[in-house]
Amino acid sequence: MTLLYSLDLIGTAAFAASGAWAGIRRDMDLFGVAVLGLVTATGGGTLRDVLLGTPPFCLQNEIYLYLSLAVALAVFCFHRRLAFLQHPLLYFDAVGLGTFVVIGSGKALGLGSGWLGTVLMGVMTATAGGVLRDVLSGQVPLILRREVYASACLAGGVLLVLLRQTPLPPGLAALLAALLTIGVRLLAIRGNWELPRARHSD
Amino acid sequence: MTLLYSLDLIGTAAFAASGAWAGIRRDMDLFGVAVLGLVTATGGGTLRDVLLGTPPFCLQNEIYLYLSLAVALAVFCFHRRLAFLQHPLLYFDAVGLGTFVVIGSGKALGLGSGWLGTVLMGVMTATAGGVLRDVLSGQVPLILRREVYASACLAGGVLLVLLRQTPLPPGLAALLAALLTIGVRLLAIRGNWELPRARHSD
Amino acid sequence: MTLLYSLDLIGTAAFAASGAWAGIRRDMDLFGVAVLGLVTATGGGTLRDVLLGTPPFCLQNEIYLYLSLAVALAVFCFHRRLAFLQHPLLYFDAVGLGTFVVIGSGKALGLGSGWLGTVLMGVMTATAGGVLRDVLSGQVPLILRREVYASACLAGGVLLVLLRQTPLPPGLAALLAALLTIGVRLLAIRGNWELPRARHSD
Repeated sequence: MTLLYSLDLIGTAAFAASGAWAGIRRDMDLFGVAVLGLVTATGGGTLRDVLLGTPPFCLQNEIYLYLSLAVALAVFCFHRRLAFLQHPLLYFDAVGLGTFVVIGSGKALGLGSGWLGTVLMGVMTATAGGVLRDVLSGQVPLILRREVYASACLAGGVLLVLLRQTPLPPGLAALLAALLTIGVRLLAIRGNWELPRARHSD
Repeated sequence: MTLLYSLDLIGTAAFAASGAWAGIRRDMDLFGVAVLGLVTATGGGTLRDVLLGTPPFCLQNEIYLYLSLAVALAVFCFHRRLAFLQHPLLYFDAVGLGTFVVIGSGKALGLGSGWLGTVLMGVMTATAGGVLRDVLSGQVPLILRREVYASACLAGGVLLVLLRQTPLPPGLAALLAALLTIGVRLLAIRGNWELPRARHSD
Repeated sequence: MTLLYSLDLIGTAAFAASGAWAGIRRDMDLFGVAVLGLVTATGGGTLRDVLLGTPPFCLQNEIYLYLSLAVALAVFCFHRRLAFLQHPLLYFDAVGLGTFVVIGSGKALGLGSGWLGTVLMGVMTATAGGVLRDVLSGQVPLILRREVYASACLAGGVLLVLLRQTPLPPGLAALLAALLTIGVRLLAIRGNWELPRARHSD
């Protein structure tokens, strides 16, 4: 599926750029920026493959490694001149989110995971890279604290599992689930949506 | 072994609750609380399975995922009304500790691990979920700093390895090792035991 | 290859000592110091094996576990009297760096990894243990922030991949790549080399 593959590469580049910028903001050196870019872009899918017991996708097809490192390097060298990209990056990031969710859930389904496991693998594919980025930069992971980010993935993962029970072709199911994820994420960015939070007193 | 399975579910629920409470204390949103509950309850066993090269237990039997998420959700919604459970939780947590140790060590032994590896797998099954919880909440893992927590697991793991060299039935060996872990842990809670600490000057 | 194995054990001991000292500096108890020593010494190779889909080296040959724990214990008990070792430790650490890089890259090559994947596996074998040590002690990983440490591994990994395309015997290729890593690292220590850093304004 060529469309999905293109979206996958766009998402990978966007995730790598967000990781690289996080490294620059935390005053890391060239190596640190490269690692953060790489981990953010490939960490989620790699963790998924380890848990599913299949060889990591990025060692099978090294284009993901080359692309992530090239993007991180470009951000490192030209981060002032590329600063105008930081806002549009949110939109490319949303594309990555939707794509990673359907790729992750689809792979888990194909390997015989149960429903909840399938949804979790989709969410993890899309979010674990960012969690690793935050842990390596010494921060509490952003997605655990605020914003409708993982919830968009959750919606997409659930829709994919549901649609795959119907006679819809898998490619169309993936497209619709990706669009739902991207749509929820973009609406959440515009509307500044937040999830409920427990009020605690201790 | 139905007793072990019941204890396993009790322990899972207790670990999920402790993770969810950690998330609430750190002001996380609904998603963050759910992730912390899930990771605390299933992270140790999952890491063990990844290292042993077997499919993660919680993807094989999704009841662990459903239970953890349900408990985390309940704590999120009713954490004020459930506050009276925080103290008893320590005891259920101890039950989980003992159960997870013998399950983890037993699985490693069955897959042909050496003695030290077997003990480590038992300790890791019981403690790695809590370590992940602390790392994700931006704290130095509690068990690395104080309290006789991992040491109780160590005692149980060593006893299991020893008893499995004897003609005792494996189920009885597991029971005795779990009881030792739980007993040491409860005594340590009552007595406020601490491990020695190196005094350093730099 | 007996030379490589001896260097491997020296490196393992040096890494375990550095992990144990990190734990002592962070006021951890006996268990925490043992865990940090173990994770620093065996974490990189274990992560590599998990990603390559082979059984973790330290569960196959438990000597790595025994050695790491023994060293961590010795540092815990005698850390004042062993303080004179902290400077020489840098040199043994460099030996570990070079050895771990060629072992990691060599294993990845042997399992059919691509070039970039091979280099990354070498770098990760040598550095991921230290990254885990820093994450578990609640610090942003040192190697992401400063010093020519990972870059020395990168140089060694690239040289190994290149030399393995030539008719040189693999053992000699490994030796040369290890020496390059160690040499770059030692020069970097003496010269206080640093990688470039992006200047950012936000």
